[in-house]
Amino acid sequence: MRFTSEQRLDDGVLEREFTLGEIPGTLWTPGSAPAPAPLILIGHNGGLRTREPRLMARARHSAAEYGYAVAAIDAPGHGDRPRSAGEERIRADLRRAKESGEPIDEILEALIAPLVDRAVPEWQTTLDALLSLPGIGGPVGYSGMTAIGIRLAVVEPRIAAAGFFAGGFVPSALREEARQVTIPLLFLLQWDDEGNDRRLALDLFDAFGSGEKTLHANVGGHTGTPWFEVDDGNRFFDRHLK
Amino acid sequence: MRFTSEQRLDDGVLEREFTLGEIPGTLWTPGSAPAPAPLILIGHNGGLRTREPRLMARARHSAAEYGYAVAAIDAPGHGDRPRSAGEERIRADLRRAKESGEPIDEILEALIAPLVDRAVPEWQTTLDALLSLPGIGGPVGYSGMTAIGIRLAVVEPRIAAAGFFAGGFVPSALREEARQVTIPLLFLLQWDDEGNDRRLALDLFDAFGSGEKTLHANVGGHTGTPWFEVDDGNRFFDRHLK
Repeated sequence: MRFTSEQRLDDGVLEREFTLGEIPGTLWTPGSAPAPAPLILIGHNGGLRTREPRLMARARHSAAEYGYAVAAIDAPGHGDRPRSAGEERIRADLRRAKESGEPIDEILEALIAPLVDRAVPEWQTTLDALLSLPGIGGPVGYSGMTAIGIRLAVVEPRIAAAGFFAGGFVPSALREEARQVTIPLLFLLQWDDEGNDRRLALDLFDAFGSGEKTLHANVGGHTGTPWFEVDDGNRFFDRHLK
Repeated sequence: MRFTSEQRLDDGVLEREFTLGEIPGTLWTPGSAPAPAPLILIGHNGGLRTREPRLMARARHSAAEYGYAVAAIDAPGHGDRPRSAGEERIRADLRRAKESGEPIDEILEALIAPLVDRAVPEWQTTLDALLSLPGIGGPVGYSGMTAIGIRLAVVEPRIAAAGFFAGGFVPSALREEARQVTIPLLFLLQWDDEGNDRRLALDLFDAFGSGEKTLHANVGGHTGTPWFEVDDGNRFFDRHLK
C-alpha cells in the first residue's frame, strides 16, 4: 500500500489517497484515537473524488464524529481505472438501451455480476493491507453497494456488520447468496427510487439470513436519502463494532 | 385533571397517575427541566400498569434521558374502564373466532373503528389539560397505536410528529384517512409479526401523505421490537419537537 497524497482536514481527520497494486483508494482516519480505530469499508462504483461528494462527506463524518477509520476503493473499470473492450461494449449497450427505453436487466447482469467477482478479492487484499497499518484494528464493517456487500459478507469472516444501500442492481445469483448472509444488517431503501424495483428490494431484505436485520425506508428518490441516516448508520456500527 | 398518586423514581423522573373525568392516565415528567418540556403522548390499548411493563420503561426513558414529558391514558373499554354490553359481546365474538380460527377482520372493524371515534376526543381533552400544567409545553408528539394516531394526526393540529407501531389492526376508513396525514412520521414494523399482514402495513406506509416519512422494519415477531428503536424514536422526536 503506497500513499500518494495526504491532507489534514479541519476536523482533524487525516485523508490519504493510496494505491495498492492497480487499486486506487482513499483512507480517512480520526485525528486522535486512543485505541486502534475500528474500520468501515465503503463500497461504491468508483470515481469518488469527481462524482461522490456526499459519500466523501459521510466518510469524513464517520471518522471525525464516531472515531472510525474509513476506506473506499474504486471498483474495477470505474473512476480512472482502465476498462476492457468487453466492458466498453456492455456500457455502450447499456446507454443505447436506456436511450431507447428498452429493458436493461440483462445488460446489468452482464455488467455487475463480473464486477462483483473482480471487486471482492480486491476488497480482501485491501483489507489485509489496511489491518496491517498502525492505529487500525478490527472488527470491520461494510457500508454501501449491495451487490459487492453480499458477496463480501458471505466470503469474508472479518466483516462483522454491514449497511447496504438498496438503490443498485443486484444480479440474480447474488439475490440467492443473500440467504447466506448472517451478520447484522442495516438495509437502506429509498421508497420512491425511480430506477429501483421496490418489491424486489423488499424481497431481498426478506431473503437475508441475518438474525438481526433492520430496514430503513425513506420517502424520496434515489439520491434523496436524508442526512440523519448517516448518523443512524454510524450508531448501527457502534452497536456491533465497538 | 386530578393526580391520584405521585412517585419520584431513581432517575429523577416524577411519575403521576391521574384521572380526568372518567379517563385514567399516567404522566412522567423529567427530574429537572430548564424550559417547558415538549410532550409525547403514548397511544396504547390500556391496562398500562398490569400489562405493559415495556411501554412504561419506554416512557420513563424518554423523560429521563431525553427530557420529554410523557403521558398515557387508557382507551375507552380498556384497562379498568367499564365496557358496554355491546363491547363485551364483540369481544366474546372475537375470542370465539380466534379459537375456531375464523377470520377476525370484520369483528376487529366493529371493535376498533368505534374505539378510535371515542378515544381521539379523549386524547384532545387530555392534551388541553396537560398543556395547561406548569413545565409542559408544545410542540407535541404522538407515539404508539396506529389507528388512534392516524385520526389524531388528522384532526389535531397540535400534533407535530408521530411514531406509529404497525402491529395493530387499522380499520379500512382509517387506512383511507392515512392519506390526509402530513406530519413527519416514523413507522415501526415487525417484519415477522404473526398477527399482522406485512403487505397491508407496507401499503399503509405508502399511503401516508407525509413529505417526511421513515419506515423502520426489524426481523422478529409482534413483541420483538429491539430496544434500540426506543432511542431511534426519541431521536426522531428530537428532530421535530426540539
